Amino acid sequence: MDPILAVGSVAFDTIKNPFGEATRVVGGSATYFSVAASFFTDVRLVAVVGDDFGDRGAALFAGRSIDLTGLQTVPGETFRWKGEYGFDLNQRDTIYTKLNVFEEFKPVIPEVHRASPFVFLGNIHPRLQLEVLDQVTAPRLVAADTMNFWIEGTRDELGEVLKRVDVLIINDAEARELTNESNLVKAARAIRAMGPTTVVIKRGEHGVLMTRPGDGEFFAAPAMPLEEVFDPTGAGDTFAGGFLGSLAACGEINDATLARAIIYGSTLASFAVEDFSLDRLLRLTQDEITERFRCFRRLTFFDEA
Amino acid sequence: MDPILAVGSVAFDTIKNPFGEATRVVGGSATYFSVAASFFTDVRLVAVVGDDFGDRGAALFAGRSIDLTGLQTVPGETFRWKGEYGFDLNQRDTIYTKLNVFEEFKPVIPEVHRASPFVFLGNIHPRLQLEVLDQVTAPRLVAADTMNFWIEGTRDELGEVLKRVDVLIINDAEARELTNESNLVKAARAIRAMGPTTVVIKRGEHGVLMTRPGDGEFFAAPAMPLEEVFDPTGAGDTFAGGFLGSLAACGEINDATLARAIIYGSTLASFAVEDFSLDRLLRLTQDEITERFRCFRRLTFFDEA
Repeated sequence: MDPILAVGSVAFDTIKNPFGEATRVVGGSATYFSVAASFFTDVRLVAVVGDDFGDRGAALFAGRSIDLTGLQTVPGETFRWKGEYGFDLNQRDTIYTKLNVFEEFKPVIPEVHRASPFVFLGNIHPRLQLEVLDQVTAPRLVAADTMNFWIEGTRDELGEVLKRVDVLIINDAEARELTNESNLVKAARAIRAMGPTTVVIKRGEHGVLMTRPGDGEFFAAPAMPLEEVFDPTGAGDTFAGGFLGSLAACGEINDATLARAIIYGSTLASFAVEDFSLDRLLRLTQDEITERFRCFRRLTFFDEA
Repeated sequence: MDPILAVGSVAFDTIKNPFGEATRVVGGSATYFSVAASFFTDVRLVAVVGDDFGDRGAALFAGRSIDLTGLQTVPGETFRWKGEYGFDLNQRDTIYTKLNVFEEFKPVIPEVHRASPFVFLGNIHPRLQLEVLDQVTAPRLVAADTMNFWIEGTRDELGEVLKRVDVLIINDAEARELTNESNLVKAARAIRAMGPTTVVIKRGEHGVLMTRPGDGEFFAAPAMPLEEVFDPTGAGDTFAGGFLGSLAACGEINDATLARAIIYGSTLASFAVEDFSLDRLLRLTQDEITERFRCFRRLTFFDEA
C-alpha cells in the first residue's frame, strides 16, 4: 500500500442548486481528492488555507488517513468559491472565485514526503505543478488534472508538465480543447503524444474513457445510472481520488488494476453526488464501496456464450 | 435457433455527408434490421416495395437467411428518403421523405410465418404494428421500435402497442419524450409501467442502457470508441437486428443472454457506420463479428482484486 502525495486547493464553497443552498462548506479539489483516496491508502496533503480555516477543516480530515504536515496555514482568508446550478444540474455558473491566500501559494513538499511513490497534481497553475515535480524524488507514478483556464492561458507550461506526467485525468471538453480534436479517440492519442501514457477522459453522466499504457487500447465504463443527482460539485476530483487511491493501494500498475481503478473512481464519484459538498463521502463506509463496486460489475458484465 | 418475423420499411435512400453522396441505395429500417439479424438466425421480412425495386433489392438479400415470402411488390415507386449530414455527423436534415407505395402498406403475415417465435415491429405506424400483432400466434418475444413522430401524433395507439410488447428499443430523446422524464433511469421505469419488461435505450456514441426484466436492474454498455464514423444511417436498426438476432439464435432469454445481445447489437452497429449505407454490413464476416465482440469485452472488462 503506497502513499499518495496530493497537491491542490482547499476552499470554502457556497453551493446553490434547485434543492437548496450550502454556505461556506469545506471544498476544493485537493479536499475531495484526499477524502476519496483516503478510503484506499494514506494521503499526504499539500495545500494552503487561511487562518479562518480553523477547527472545521481539522474536523473534516480527522480520523482519516490524511497527513496534514504539508498543509500550510497563513494569515488571511481561505480560497472561496460560489457556484449556482441550473434546474437539470448540467449547467453551472460560477458566482465568484476569491483566491485569497491561494494567490500566493507556493507548494512546499515536506522533506519526509519527497519520496512519495504516487503523486497527484491537482488542478492548479502548471508552474506550481512543475515546482512540485522538481521537489519529489523519482515517483513511480505521477497523475495530473488541469482545466480550460490553463489550457488557454498557459499552454507552454502545461506542455512541460505533460512531458513529466504518466496519467492525465481531464474531462471530454478539456481533452478536445487541448488537442483541437473533436473525436475523443484521436484526442486521447494526441494527448499520449504529449507525454502521458495513460489518458483518463471523464464524460460526466456518460462515464469514463481511458487509453491503456503500452498499446493504447481503450477501456470504457458507464456512469452508474442514478435516479437522483443532488450535487455534482467535486465529482471529478472524487473520481480522481478513488482512481489513484485504488491504484496506490494495490501498488501494481497494469491493464487490470487500471480498469479496476476506473471503477473505484466511478464508485466514489457516484456517492459524492448524492448529497451537498462532501457530506455523503464523510459518512461513506467500506462496505458501501464494495457493494457499489459489485453493482458496477453487474451493470457492465457480459461474456461469450 | 428461432426465426424472427420482421416488419418495417424498405426504401431507396440518398445520403449526403461531408465525405460524399450515395444516390438511391437500398435502405429502410427493416432492411438494416434484417441484414444484421441474418448473421445470427433466419429472418422473415414483411414489407412493401414498388415495381422499381427490381433486381437490386433481390441482389442485396440474396444468399442471406432472409425469407422474402412476405415482401409485397406493388405498382408504383418504392419509399424514398434523402438525408444530409452536417460536418460532425451528429446533425442530420431530412431533405425529403416520399412514402410512395409505403403509404398504403398493409402488413400481411404469410400463413407459414404466423407462428414465428420472435417478432420485430419496426418503426411504422402503431396501427400497423397492432395489425401485425393481431396476425401472429403467441410469439415468445415481441420487440418494437418507434419514433418521435408516433409519440407525438399517435400516442394512444402507441400505448396499445406497448401493452403487447416485451422489449422496446428506442433512443434517449424518444424515451424522454415518451415519458416526460429527463432522467433516463426514471424514463426507463416509466416505460416498464407501460408494458415492456425490457427497455433498451440507445444513446448513440454514448452507448446503450437496458433495464432487465424482473427486478429492472440496469445493464450499460459503451459504444466502441471509433476514430472515424463515415455514415450513421441505419445504425439504430442495425443495432436492433444484432440484438434480436443474437437473442433468437440462442433462444434463451435471461440476464446473461440479454447483456450479450446488447453487445452483439453494438458490434453490428459499430461496423454499419464505417461505410455508406449497408456497404460495410454486406461485406462483413462472422470472424469479424467475433473479433469485435471480443474487443468489446476487452474494452469493458474488470474484476475485483
